[in-house]
Amino acid sequence: MTKLELWRELAAQLRVDSIRATTEAGSGHPTSSMSAADLMAVLLADHLRYDFANPKHPANDHLVFSKGHASPLLYALFKAAGAITDAELLTLRKFGSRLEGHPTPVLPWVEVATGSLGQGLAVGLGIALAGKYLDKLSYRVWVLSGDSEMAEGSVWEAVQHAAHYKLGNLICIVDVNRLGQRGETMLGWNTRAYAQQAQAFGWRTLEIDGHNLDEIDRAYAQAEGSSEAPGDSVATRRAYGDALRALGAARPDVVALDGEVSNSTYAEDFARVYPDRYFEMYIAEQQMVAAAVGLQVRGYTPFASTFAAFLTRAYDFIRMAAVSRANIKLVGSHAGVSIGWDGPSQMGLEDIAMMRAVGGSTVLYPCDANQTAQLVVQMADRPGVVFLRTTREKTPVLYAPEQRFPIGGSVVLRRSERDAATIVAAGITLHEALRAQQQLAGEGIAARVIDAYSIKPIDAATLRQAARETGRLVTVEDHWPEGGLGEAVLAALATGEPVPPVRLLGVKAMPGSGTPEELLDAAGISARHIAHAVRELVGAPSPTGAGKH
Amino acid sequence: MTKLELWRELAAQLRVDSIRATTEAGSGHPTSSMSAADLMAVLLADHLRYDFANPKHPANDHLVFSKGHASPLLYALFKAAGAITDAELLTLRKFGSRLEGHPTPVLPWVEVATGSLGQGLAVGLGIALAGKYLDKLSYRVWVLSGDSEMAEGSVWEAVQHAAHYKLGNLICIVDVNRLGQRGETMLGWNTRAYAQQAQAFGWRTLEIDGHNLDEIDRAYAQAEGSSEAPGDSVATRRAYGDALRALGAARPDVVALDGEVSNSTYAEDFARVYPDRYFEMYIAEQQMVAAAVGLQVRGYTPFASTFAAFLTRAYDFIRMAAVSRANIKLVGSHAGVSIGWDGPSQMGLEDIAMMRAVGGSTVLYPCDANQTAQLVVQMADRPGVVFLRTTREKTPVLYAPEQRFPIGGSVVLRRSERDAATIVAAGITLHEALRAQQQLAGEGIAARVIDAYSIKPIDAATLRQAARETGRLVTVEDHWPEGGLGEAVLAALATGEPVPPVRLLGVKAMPGSGTPEELLDAAGISARHIAHAVRELVGAPSPTGAGKH
Repeated sequence: MTKLELWRELAAQLRVDSIRATTEAGSGHPTSSMSAADLMAVLLADHLRYDFANPKHPANDHLVFSKGHASPLLYALFKAAGAITDAELLTLRKFGSRLEGHPTPVLPWVEVATGSLGQGLAVGLGIALAGKYLDKLSYRVWVLSGDSEMAEGSVWEAVQHAAHYKLGNLICIVDVNRLGQRGETMLGWNTRAYAQQAQAFGWRTLEIDGHNLDEIDRAYAQAEGSSEAPGDSVATRRAYGDALRALGAARPDVVALDGEVSNSTYAEDFARVYPDRYFEMYIAEQQMVAAAVGLQVRGYTPFASTFAAFLTRAYDFIRMAAVSRANIKLVGSHAGVSIGWDGPSQMGLEDIAMMRAVGGSTVLYPCDANQTAQLVVQMADRPGVVFLRTTREKTPVLYAPEQRFPIGGSVVLRRSERDAATIVAAGITLHEALRAQQQLAGEGIAARVIDAYSIKPIDAATLRQAARETGRLVTVEDHWPEGGLGEAVLAALATGEPVPPVRLLGVKAMPGSGTPEELLDAAGISARHIAHAVRELVGAPSPTGAGKH
Repeated sequence: MTKLELWRELAAQLRVDSIRATTEAGSGHPTSSMSAADLMAVLLADHLRYDFANPKHPANDHLVFSKGHASPLLYALFKAAGAITDAELLTLRKFGSRLEGHPTPVLPWVEVATGSLGQGLAVGLGIALAGKYLDKLSYRVWVLSGDSEMAEGSVWEAVQHAAHYKLGNLICIVDVNRLGQRGETMLGWNTRAYAQQAQAFGWRTLEIDGHNLDEIDRAYAQAEGSSEAPGDSVATRRAYGDALRALGAARPDVVALDGEVSNSTYAEDFARVYPDRYFEMYIAEQQMVAAAVGLQVRGYTPFASTFAAFLTRAYDFIRMAAVSRANIKLVGSHAGVSIGWDGPSQMGLEDIAMMRAVGGSTVLYPCDANQTAQLVVQMADRPGVVFLRTTREKTPVLYAPEQRFPIGGSVVLRRSERDAATIVAAGITLHEALRAQQQLAGEGIAARVIDAYSIKPIDAATLRQAARETGRLVTVEDHWPEGGLGEAVLAALATGEPVPPVRLLGVKAMPGSGTPEELLDAAGISARHIAHAVRELVGAPSPTGAGKH
């Protein structure tokens, strides 16, 4: 059998299997599979260097189906490679099957989840970064993209970064089938337009008939040629926090990324010492998170940082990282109104809610330097999406360097036998809580103070004990009340037992500019507001000059 | 004084005022203001058609400072135009001042908030859509962009859409000062590269020395010429839901946008009847939300729809819409595990948390067709960011067409004197709750059922009454438990009063594919799990064949 005959037979089988699987499932996207069957047949037969018996082999090429809707084709490829049986192929989309509607890493040959369009090239870029700059291995990253998803800005973030980092090992196959879900794409059959756009960003492009098997073969061979191009060195970049730098010394797997604010997030401390393990992602937060997902595919431990507010830009990528079962560390600085003068566009006020509502995530919010250092070390080994919220303003150091802060724990900072209420806080509001506690103590009101540095998982046992023993709680956070620390505390208490009176303090109106002190007070989360809430709960009068305003 | 002398003096004054304001504030971004001072001087003096005394005048040009960090320059412009005094200029970044660190619409001459980079051109595109296709007025939209923000994918979404919609009235001024916050940009001084990239998407570009006042003047004159280009008609698109179509008949201000899934969201029902008021935004969710913000600047009432999961893609834009005090309606379909076969990448499981944590937002989640219709009508007049969560699966019609569902209300669907517990649900889980109630009634356990279709604001009074009268609550939602309906209920109950035992049911592990029924059951939110939770709370035994699994 000639190569051409083999490709033709394989492509036919892939088509048949895609149709059989979706017919059996009664739903799915067979057309998206049809248009790429020839492209994938030639790839599998003669270009993909991949050991299906050993999917973790470091020298393996990587194949990312960015058009995850073509999962029937991907699963048909797996069958053709002998990785799954025909019987399993026909379990597509059935409850309990590994062959989900869109590919996820429950299958050993799938490294990242796709199905939210426009993410595959961005994640593939992360794998290619690892291959060229960290692993220094010659594997290629093949990304199958749809034409519809070229409308996503994240694709163009990836296109820019691939050129900037000269990633000849990243090969994007755009399957122009002209059709989205609803109708024709913006550019229709105009493959020239896609090619010119990519060229304008510095890409080498090849336009071919995606059903001409010889043309496909030649194009792949040319694309592979590009991957041998000599790489130039990554520019030396600024740095990150002390903790990450220390961790970098102990752990060669730790890498850092930042979205053009490394001098604000202190990612520059890391970058200065380990320039070869730092990637500047410029102002492209989607690409930054996607690259982190790609880097962890190759076993690296990526810490990606920007302002907490701007992680909202990458929320779809963070959500999909959880579907990918990816282990990534995100650091959001400049949380809350306490950043002061810059105004609300720069304030992270929804990041706790956003990050808590990610499957399997961890949410940490330290209040001092030593606690931060401890938590950063633990983040490295914590699976899933792990988020650390940091504060712009300087805060007093409360803890000794040797103190331990287990994830899922908390610290009871103030307690007595007579505690009439508990104040739960974290980060900057913890310092306000301590001031309120002192003020109240002067009025004869004893209050417990809990540092809930681990917001998810939260220390339910300590909170429940405090609820039982003190009978009243006030929570206070520099964040919208919805989905934040206060609701996390309520959810921990509401497990079938009665919950005592709780007052939730948070930011309730759109803030403006001002000093941190002015803004914390205007938001109702400063010490005097906390003290006032405790007084109201315990039925104590306001002292002269204090109280509600 | 010649024109040139006037421009030079004005530019010098803008520089001086930018420095004076930031010096007085003690913080801010004077350099970002310096680099664009000449560009803005010529614009203000000879090109911007704008009546500062009448900022709402329909014929006014629009100026969007996408590089919101250059706010000192913007405020200096306002002073030069006589809109603010020198004394007010020096209140920059002070508490209570309208001159916040980054511009927001607390100033009458600022239409949208900026400061999160990469959003200005996308929002400007929405204003330009309104100008060309709806208002049919000849105003121009001037967007001042920084070079750093060209790395944001959202900029390239806007570049694509501007070409697709042939928006000659949209003029983007890219101020290439080579510097980001941390260091040099990817492209440095390479203005040719930016120009070529934009050209590849079909833009006309002009490269000039941004400090040569004559060159600036000529470039603006040429750019204005483009805005007279004849527009071709927008292609007729598919439609939206019945309700939106009906609303469209009554309200000419209602417009619809969709992210290439209008046949899934049923935006196509609207598009078919009102093709001139429908904008296909392809798979570019950031651009879709940004365009909605731009359209409302001109008084339109935009409804933008896609899968709820993919609204996460635009979270930064939604957050900034709130800072902009924008009135936009977002519709997220395919919520929760109940979509079935497509798998977790397509499931909205974090959208309630995300949308609740938006300042001043409204979150609605109807359970049947008539309720949806009623809520869509109310959305049109509701200020702020208003979100409607819809379900893929067909659900039984529970309500009569004439029934009213006020925002902030709820419906008590089942109640008796003997109720031993309350089940709070919304959307698809409401139907599961009703089945559980029936099952429990057969066992002699009376349960109240509340339809909490308005999740924010939530009907606290009805919930508190139910808590008092029944003593126990079970909440159930097709969403991660964090930040969702359950926590909203807890927050409503925890206002200083004790809270009775509450059990929160939600999706707690990453789902896969399957039938809606299988997935609802596997997630622990089906009728039998609800019934089991109620039995446990009231201390009743499990009947044979039911109960915990």
